[in-house]
This record gives sequence, C-alpha cells and structure tokens, in this order.
Amino acid sequence: MIKITLPDSSVKEFPDPVTSLEIAQSISPRLAKEVLSATVDGETWDLTRKITKDATVKLNTWDDREGKETFWHSSAHLMAEAIEFFYPGTKFGIGPTVDTGFYYDIDLPDGQQIAEKDLQEIEKKMLELARQKNDIVRKEISKGNAMEMFTQKNDELKQELISELEDGTITLYNQGNFTDLCRGPHLPNTGYIKAIKLTFIAGAYWRGNENNKMLTRIYGVTFPKQKMLEEYLIMLEEAKKRDHRKIGKEMELFTFSEAVGQGLPLWLPKGAQLRMQLEDFLKKVQKMYGYDQVITPHIGDVKLYKTSGHYEKYGKDSFQPITTPAEGEEYLLKPMNCPHHCEIYKAKPHSYKDLPLRMAEFGTVYRYEQSGELHGLTRVRGFTQDDAHIFCRPDQLKDEFKKVIDIIFIIFKALSFDDYTAQISLRDPENPAKYIGSAENWDKAEKAIIEACEEKGLNTTTEKGEAAFYGPKLDFMIKDALGRSWQLGTIQVDYNLPERFNLEYIGADDNRHRPVMIHRAPFGSMERFVAVLIEHTAGKFPLWLAPEQAVVLPISEKYNEYAQKVSNILNNSDIRTVVDDRNEKIGRKIRDNELKRIPYLLIVGEKEKDEETVSVRRQGEGDIGLQQIGEFARFVADEVKGQLSGLYN
Amino acid sequence: MIKITLPDSSVKEFPDPVTSLEIAQSISPRLAKEVLSATVDGETWDLTRKITKDATVKLNTWDDREGKETFWHSSAHLMAEAIEFFYPGTKFGIGPTVDTGFYYDIDLPDGQQIAEKDLQEIEKKMLELARQKNDIVRKEISKGNAMEMFTQKNDELKQELISELEDGTITLYNQGNFTDLCRGPHLPNTGYIKAIKLTFIAGAYWRGNENNKMLTRIYGVTFPKQKMLEEYLIMLEEAKKRDHRKIGKEMELFTFSEAVGQGLPLWLPKGAQLRMQLEDFLKKVQKMYGYDQVITPHIGDVKLYKTSGHYEKYGKDSFQPITTPAEGEEYLLKPMNCPHHCEIYKAKPHSYKDLPLRMAEFGTVYRYEQSGELHGLTRVRGFTQDDAHIFCRPDQLKDEFKKVIDIIFIIFKALSFDDYTAQISLRDPENPAKYIGSAENWDKAEKAIIEACEEKGLNTTTEKGEAAFYGPKLDFMIKDALGRSWQLGTIQVDYNLPERFNLEYIGADDNRHRPVMIHRAPFGSMERFVAVLIEHTAGKFPLWLAPEQAVVLPISEKYNEYAQKVSNILNNSDIRTVVDDRNEKIGRKIRDNELKRIPYLLIVGEKEKDEETVSVRRQGEGDIGLQQIGEFARFVADEVKGQLSGLYN
Repeated sequence: MIKITLPDSSVKEFPDPVTSLEIAQSISPRLAKEVLSATVDGETWDLTRKITKDATVKLNTWDDREGKETFWHSSAHLMAEAIEFFYPGTKFGIGPTVDTGFYYDIDLPDGQQIAEKDLQEIEKKMLELARQKNDIVRKEISKGNAMEMFTQKNDELKQELISELEDGTITLYNQGNFTDLCRGPHLPNTGYIKAIKLTFIAGAYWRGNENNKMLTRIYGVTFPKQKMLEEYLIMLEEAKKRDHRKIGKEMELFTFSEAVGQGLPLWLPKGAQLRMQLEDFLKKVQKMYGYDQVITPHIGDVKLYKTSGHYEKYGKDSFQPITTPAEGEEYLLKPMNCPHHCEIYKAKPHSYKDLPLRMAEFGTVYRYEQSGELHGLTRVRGFTQDDAHIFCRPDQLKDEFKKVIDIIFIIFKALSFDDYTAQISLRDPENPAKYIGSAENWDKAEKAIIEACEEKGLNTTTEKGEAAFYGPKLDFMIKDALGRSWQLGTIQVDYNLPERFNLEYIGADDNRHRPVMIHRAPFGSMERFVAVLIEHTAGKFPLWLAPEQAVVLPISEKYNEYAQKVSNILNNSDIRTVVDDRNEKIGRKIRDNELKRIPYLLIVGEKEKDEETVSVRRQGEGDIGLQQIGEFARFVADEVKGQLSGLYN
Repeated sequence: MIKITLPDSSVKEFPDPVTSLEIAQSISPRLAKEVLSATVDGETWDLTRKITKDATVKLNTWDDREGKETFWHSSAHLMAEAIEFFYPGTKFGIGPTVDTGFYYDIDLPDGQQIAEKDLQEIEKKMLELARQKNDIVRKEISKGNAMEMFTQKNDELKQELISELEDGTITLYNQGNFTDLCRGPHLPNTGYIKAIKLTFIAGAYWRGNENNKMLTRIYGVTFPKQKMLEEYLIMLEEAKKRDHRKIGKEMELFTFSEAVGQGLPLWLPKGAQLRMQLEDFLKKVQKMYGYDQVITPHIGDVKLYKTSGHYEKYGKDSFQPITTPAEGEEYLLKPMNCPHHCEIYKAKPHSYKDLPLRMAEFGTVYRYEQSGELHGLTRVRGFTQDDAHIFCRPDQLKDEFKKVIDIIFIIFKALSFDDYTAQISLRDPENPAKYIGSAENWDKAEKAIIEACEEKGLNTTTEKGEAAFYGPKLDFMIKDALGRSWQLGTIQVDYNLPERFNLEYIGADDNRHRPVMIHRAPFGSMERFVAVLIEHTAGKFPLWLAPEQAVVLPISEKYNEYAQKVSNILNNSDIRTVVDDRNEKIGRKIRDNELKRIPYLLIVGEKEKDEETVSVRRQGEGDIGLQQIGEFARFVADEVKGQLSGLYN
C-alpha cells in the first residue's frame, strides 16, 4: 500500500501501483470524468501514469491552469495528426500551449501550403480522430533510438531538438497513427476533446531566429464541451468590438506614428484628459495616505543601473546606452524609477522617526520590445508607471501593506472592477540560499503580508516558492467584463535595493539600520491600465472619468449660439462639455456622438432655447427628459459625487 | 557740411568732419559727459572717430548695452595694462565683455601666477592709471605690421589671432604704455573709469579647447561712479543669499546626484509640489484659452528630427542616438516637442473650421551641455518646457498672439513680476532671401504681432533683422527683485515646420493650405522658471504657491496631538500644513521654520488647545494674533483667492 496526500492534507491509502485516474474515481465518478492531469510531488503527470510510492497528488480539472494546459497540449498533437494525414511528410517543430489554446510550428513538404480556408478540413479531421477516442500512450526510449526514429522520418527539426536534450531517457507520445517527441503530460485519450476551432495561420521563424527557416504556425483552441466553444467565440467577437486599439481610434484617445517610432504612443487630447484624470485621482488618494510626489529624469548614468542590478537585467536586450560628445559619459533610458528614488532617499540622513517615506512618481520608463511583440497600449516601448516606493522599518511593513491594499480597493471601486483575486507569493522554504535578506526579516515580511490580507478580509491564494529572490509579494488579478483576467497592482517587498544602495536610517538605539522598500503600482502603467479600462468598459467610462461628459447638439445652425452658451455654463461648472455644431441632421449627430461614447447628449432647439433647458439623452439609455441647465449641472455633479463618494476626502 | 540723423529722426548739420563727442556737446554738456560710444550707421564707434559723410548716429550712455560694452571693453584693456606692469612678458589672449563686466585670458610668464590676494594690487594700479586720464587711441595698421609687432613681443596668442584675420587693415588701440590688437570701440580716455572690482580668477583653456594650453582668466567689473560699485556689491551679496541653489537646498526643493548624472535635477517632494502647483495653474489658464493637453514620448526616431531639421542643429553636439539590439533602429532623446506635435496634427485631416488647434504639453526635453556650463536649475541637461504649439490660419495670427499675451500677463500678475519689457523681432527688409515663407505671409505676421502688442497696450521695442529665418517673434524680459533681467516667454511664429512636415488644412475654398505654427512657452522651462522665481522671491513664494503654507509648532510634546489635529483640519480644507513635533525649544522651532520660508507659523500650547485656536505668526511679519482654527482656514483661503482673483475662473 502507498500513502497519497491530497491538497486538503487528507491522506488516503491505495494499493501499489495506483494511477491518478483511479484516485479520482475513488473520490467521485464525476471528478474522474472531469480530471485532466495530476500534479504528483510537484510535477504534472498523465492520469494513467503509475504512482509507485508515497506522494502528494493534486488532481487538475479544466479550472486549473495545469488541467487546461494538458488538454491543449494533447489538442496540438491531435492537430498534428490531422495535418500529417492531409500533408504526409510534414516536419513538426514545437507545439506548445499559449494563454488560450495552442499552436504548432510545422514545415510543410516542398511546394505545399495551408491557407485559412484549409483549416476547416483539418478541424473536421481532428473531430473525427477525437471521436475515435484513441489512447494517448507514453513511451520511454533512449536518446539514440529517438534520434534514429526522427532521422528515418527525415524530420530534421525534431533531430535538432533531440540533439540538445541530455543523454538518457526520452519520452514519446503516440495516438492513432501519430507519434511525437514530447515531455507530456497528456490526456488519457483523444475523446476528451469535443469542440475545436483553428483560429489563425502565421509565419514564424524556426526557434524565433530570423536566420532560420520560416515555418507555418497554426493556432487553435479546443474545449471539453461544444457550448464552451460557442461562448468563447461570442466572447472573441465581443473582445474584437472592445479592442482598445479600435475604440482608442474611434474615441480619438491615442495614436501611433511611424515617424516617431513603433510602440511609442502619442496621447491625443481626449486620451491625455482621461489619463490626467486618472493620475489626479490617484494623486488625491495617495495624498490622503501620506505619499509625497517627486519628479526624476528619464535617463540615468549607466553606473546607477549597474549599482541597482538593472543593467545586468535589461542592459543587453534594451535600448542601448546614450553617449555624449565629450567627457565619456554613458546614460541609459531608465527602465525603472527605483534607482532614482533610492538616490533621493540618500539625499539626506534619516531617523527612524522619519519613516515610512512614501515616494510617488508618475515615472515614464523605456524598455525595448521587439516590434513583433508590440500590441496597442498593452505592450509598448515607453510607458508611465504610477510608481511609488515606500521606505520603512521592518516593523512597519504590515501597516504599509494594509494601506496599499486600501488604495487598490479604492481604485477597484472607483472603476467597477468588482471581481478580483489576490495571490501571496512566499519563498521556497526548502531553498533558503536562493534569497537575499535574513530569515528573520523574511519571516516578518511574510507574516506581515499574510496578516495584512487577513485583516483586510482579502481572499488570497498562497504560492510557496513564487517570491522574487529579493522579497515576497502580493499580486492582484482582476476579471474584466468579458471574464478575462488581467494582473494589476503588485505589492513587492524588496530587501535587495536597500542593500545595493546602502540605504540607512538611525534607529531608536542610535545604530544604523537598513530600511525595507515596498514597490507598488496599482495601475501598473497608465498605458496598459487605460487599455484594460477601455476593454472592460467598451469605452463607456464612468462619468467622473469620461474625457467628454456631455455634448450639446443643436438641431440646426440656428441654435449653435445657444448650444455654445450651454457649453460655456457647463464648463464653468467643471462639466467637460463640447458642442457638435456640424451642419448635419440631428439623427446623424446623435449616432456619431453615441459612437464617441459621450455619456450625455444634450439636444437643443427652439423650445430648449426659449426655456433655457436641454433635452437630455443618456448614452445607451435614450431620452431622460427636459432639464434646466443648472438642474442638469447639479444632476451630473451629483452623479460624479456618487461615483467617488467615500473614496477620498 | 554733413547731415546727421538722430534716433528721434531729427536731422542736424555739422561741419565735415565731426565726431560723435562733438555731436553730443552740441546737444547738451551733460550728455557729452555721459556718452560712452556712438552707433554710426549701425556700427559702434569711438566717440572721437571722425564722421566724414551723412550718417545716422545713436549716442550710447551707460543705460545702453553698447555704452556699457564700450566701458567694460576699455576696462579690460586697463586691467591688461596693470597686469603688464606687474608681470612684464605676459601674453594676452582675448578680453571680451560679459553680461556684467569683462574678463581677460592671459598667459603669465613661466613660473609666475596671480592669486586672489594679488587682485587688490592690480585694482589699485588700474585706478592709478585711470586717474592719469590717458587717451585711448585708435590706430590702423597693415596685417603684416601687426604680425611683426606681436612677434617682437613674443605673444603667440595674438599672432594666432592675427593670422586668422582677413588681409587688410587691422586696428590697434593704445593707452599709456599698453597697446592691444582690438576692433574697438573704446572710451576716449581711461579717466571715465572711476570704480573697479576684480571679482574672480579661473583657469580657462585657450579658445575653450581642452587640447590647448590652460590660461588664467581674470574677471572684473567697473563703473563710472563709486556709488554704483557699492550698490553692485550689495546686490551681489544679496544675490548670493538668494542663490536658488542655496535656497533650494535649505527649502529641500531639489537636489542633484552624481550617480544619476550631472545637470539632471531630482525634484524633492516640496519642489515637486511647487512645480505641480505651477503646472496646474497654467493648465487651468490654458484650459480657459482653449488649449488641449497632449502627452508624447521622450524619444523619437532619428528620421523625425532629420525631417524637422533638429538633428542637423542638435545632433552632433547633443546626446548621441540610442540604438536597439535588433532591427537597426535609431532614436534620439527629444531636444524639442514640436516634431511630436506635428505628428499629432497629421494624425487626422483638418478643415479650416477646426483651427486654431492649441496643443499643450509639459514636455521634458534633453540637450547635452558641457559639464562646465551647468548651473543649478538654470542650465541643465534635462528640462520640462511648458510647451504649446498653436496651429492656425494666417488670418488668425493676431488673435492668437493677443491670447498668448493675455496668458503671459496672467502669469506675471500671479507671480508679481511687475517690471517687464517686450521686444518684437522682425525680418531684415534688406535681405529677404534669408527667410522662409512668402513676403505676403511675413507682412501679415509682422503686422499681426505689432497690432496685437498695440491692442494689448504693451510697451515694445522693435528690432529689424532679429527674427529667426522661419518667422518673427515677441520676447518678454522681466526684471527681478534685484533688478536683474531674465528672458521669459517667447512667442515665435513658424513657417518652417509646417513646410517640412507638409501640414495642411482644407480651406473654405476646398483647396489645401498650410497652417502657421506658433511656439510659445511662457515659463520657458519649469527648471529655469523655478530658479528665477526662487531668486526673485528669495524663496518666499506667494501663499498660493508655497509648497507648505502653514506649520504647526507645539510648544512642547504635550501638545503634539492637538497640533496634529489642527494640521488635519487645515489639510482637509486644502491648506498645505505640516507639524514640527521635534523635541526642540519653541524659539528654535520658529527660527528653523522661518528658514524654510513657510508663510504661516501656528504656535499651539495650553491656551490654544483649550480654546481650539492657534497663535498665528506671518513669515517676516511676526505675531498677528490668536485665531480659531476655522477662522484661520478662511483667512488663508481668502488670501489665496485674493492673489489669484480675476486671473482665471
């Protein structure tokens, strides 16, 4: 008999050997149907692989990342099998999983190619093979035998991969007529895969190196139920409509210019207004929590980043150093604000009474990304972090964490991110040598984070071994309106930079001590946050944040003057108002301004002019009636106040 | 007889030849005593030089730049004569005038040197030589003779200078025993110089090139009256006290870090607060005048600056291009924001109805300066312009100029710059080929500026030929509290960038037209402006701008809690308040906080705590009595309102 420890710490005995599938069956038939792979002593295994000694076992379903990965990995093999059927002689590179789905990089036989229109045939074949419920079988062979096998198949891609593996046992997976070199794990059989969509064909250099051959990359996604695919396709359609690049263009929020450079956003007036509104909001919240704003340059001496360690991390693959005509100086575009803030800390001596110091900056940093990896505002080469560094004593960590959690809650509330989770990343207790800072300080910091989360009533998961080498952290994940997850708001403890910059304070004991640093950026970056916000709200921002809150639409040119008067009155009441005085029909004006997602449309004609009123339409809700100008101003002010009430004073 | 036209356009006849000194005598004996040089047909001449044909003549006194320059130039020669007396064999490099005074770069005979303490002896000798009233005599000789003369004197510095002159007549000036190669002009004799102060010795490479020999540079300043020197020395003393570097440190406004890099300011919390307050103020004013804020990156493709012409201007002597690890891209730290704004203009088509577009950005730009030229916040390598570009139709220029003048007036008023002048720079009508843009557009633009100034009641001087090649401009000069002049607020018309970027709008005639651009930055840069403001106010900023408006001083630790309560109430009323709860005597606390220039000191003890009051001290004015907390809050709010009243809504 062997002992199996389950995640809830319960221990069950099973005859030796036992498979994870059998363990699942012993718990419930339903679980046995849903389980996709198992994590055995920290390693993900096939369900049918035999466990022959005491072990901890976690059963992974579709709801676990590992479960999905297993599912999609097997789907990649299934796609390969279908492709081999239609295009015998195809060579197979790598077929990994991605965030949603999988791809395979393939080298088609000379003269052959796959087009978008061929994907449906492949899908069909995949479904047919899936319905056969072919077992997916793991096989261990020697490196030599593996090499011989793929040499026979003339697959030099696989041969190259094998040649780089360490000597010893190599695993193959076989299903139906298809065998692939693969570390696994896989589903028990292809029958689990019920719904298939191949989404996209692209070219991709073998191993991402442009000196190599260009292969064909086919992306796909699969599901255990047809209904899940349908929901996914609807979500995809909705996501396309909400694509921040599309809405950003329609609402004139930002643009890119090839002449300025790729990945370098230009914020147009309305986008800049939106961003500044967010920044001012956070500044007010931060002021309430005792933060000080600072401003630092966008470059720094290369030596500064050697001190901080960032040069080692970003130097080679980033924007290269800036030299000067004389004096042999070398500067870097700053990839991080922290070194500058450490220098500000060092500008004067500190006593334990001065701490915590909370130094905030909307700091623009530059990091080189390959052009193929750039994507709208979510992946750019220059971005502005809502950065802050808290320099505190170790005994202040918990309170500071609680305050940062408060700030993050305020932001989530102001922007209606109601669905979020948090993860605490702790050190690996088995591997203490990996971490900088004393065990005592780590204990303190980990305890501070855990207690802060508890006291704030935050639901968290905890991952051991996921901490950075320089400190534990807390991450927030929000779910947007389409159910997609975004990581926002990391709170990171740091014992490393205070050490590297030799930061000190004089304690109550008159001795020198090291402060601890907390890095935090609730938005992350203004660019990425605005992108997420656009996709979350489909551009229909909360009223307090909308770049334009109202637009006045005169029904004909005769009322342009009155419209301008209304606009002036509202602007003087701090309601961001514009006039659409184009010579267009009122129906067209309404449609165009709905597309701009302006919350209030104020239609004015003879009656409104005579009575000093406006006919109010709420975006997406239609007509809500006639109001006096002043009445409407109060109405809007109240709505804004309601949205922000209680968030800051 | 010859005709002399004077600046008031009156014409006088004189026998041929006549000297400017004789002309002055004919006007008034007092003027003849005060005149220092004359501008004859646009060239500055010795007073005693003979005029032999009809000419326009402007007589320069101490109040004219040209008059002062003549005075100080002769003073440089006088210093050289005194130095030659004490250190025979000294070789003389160049001896120009500077903003205030003059210097001479000299090469002392081997083994000799001049120290700070030797300056007094030289001053004494200069005064002695001045009292001799030696005539300063102009002499024309051939280049060959000049070369021979300085070869005999072994003065290879002068030989080098002569060798670079064009062939033909060269002028020498002689006084007493001293003769110098010099273009002139000079005073009639040394007796004009009544008061002398040699201020400073420094090393300087010959011709500013570090591969050349290091010479000794001696700075001095002289005056026509002893009293003026005394006033100047007092002003110098006062300027030292107001040095923004000193006050910036005392008030913890900004700092520099060698690790970050020279000339790259780090704005500390109070300085950042001050700067953001100024930025928010200008943003509000600009919003009132229809500006849109935009935000652009701090780098741009090198090609962008080739298009704009900035690469040619800044490229070689500036921060060098930033390369990327792949894709062969090259970026520049942006030296100007205009190219980015032109790209935003181009992001969509424009109609004549859309104009003017007023695009504003607090844009940080980077320009390399040699380390020896850096100076506090006035000369830095990275600075933030309060930049804006107005894209308008030619017929809108005047109105736009008037609006920018309004904004500059608002700023001057809010910051108590009461003493200012303005200069209009027009094109040289003799040299039309020098300028880009049609004569018609230039006429329009020049007329627009002149009329805008008139209609705004602005006193201006007009300089023909001082316009940039791409457009006329208007410059403001303010006088600070010490009477020093600073240039602030240029309004520059630009026909060049619209051409280079091919900017267009569709006119009412349905044809394509070029917009005109106006560049304007009322503050110039936040760095330099804050420096000027510190020196103007000696750090005693207007209440609305002070980074900390009030500090609460508990008379002992017993009242710390009450002090904190007062501070919280005031901060909630948007009065920036801090507490000095150090364990120090109240007298010490008052002194320390006066040094921090906090406008209001609020002293609290038993009585104040019981009565919920504060004892108010106004910075520099002393005790102004007991006030209820709420009463004080209203008092401060009223003062702030009074300072900004009527400036914006």
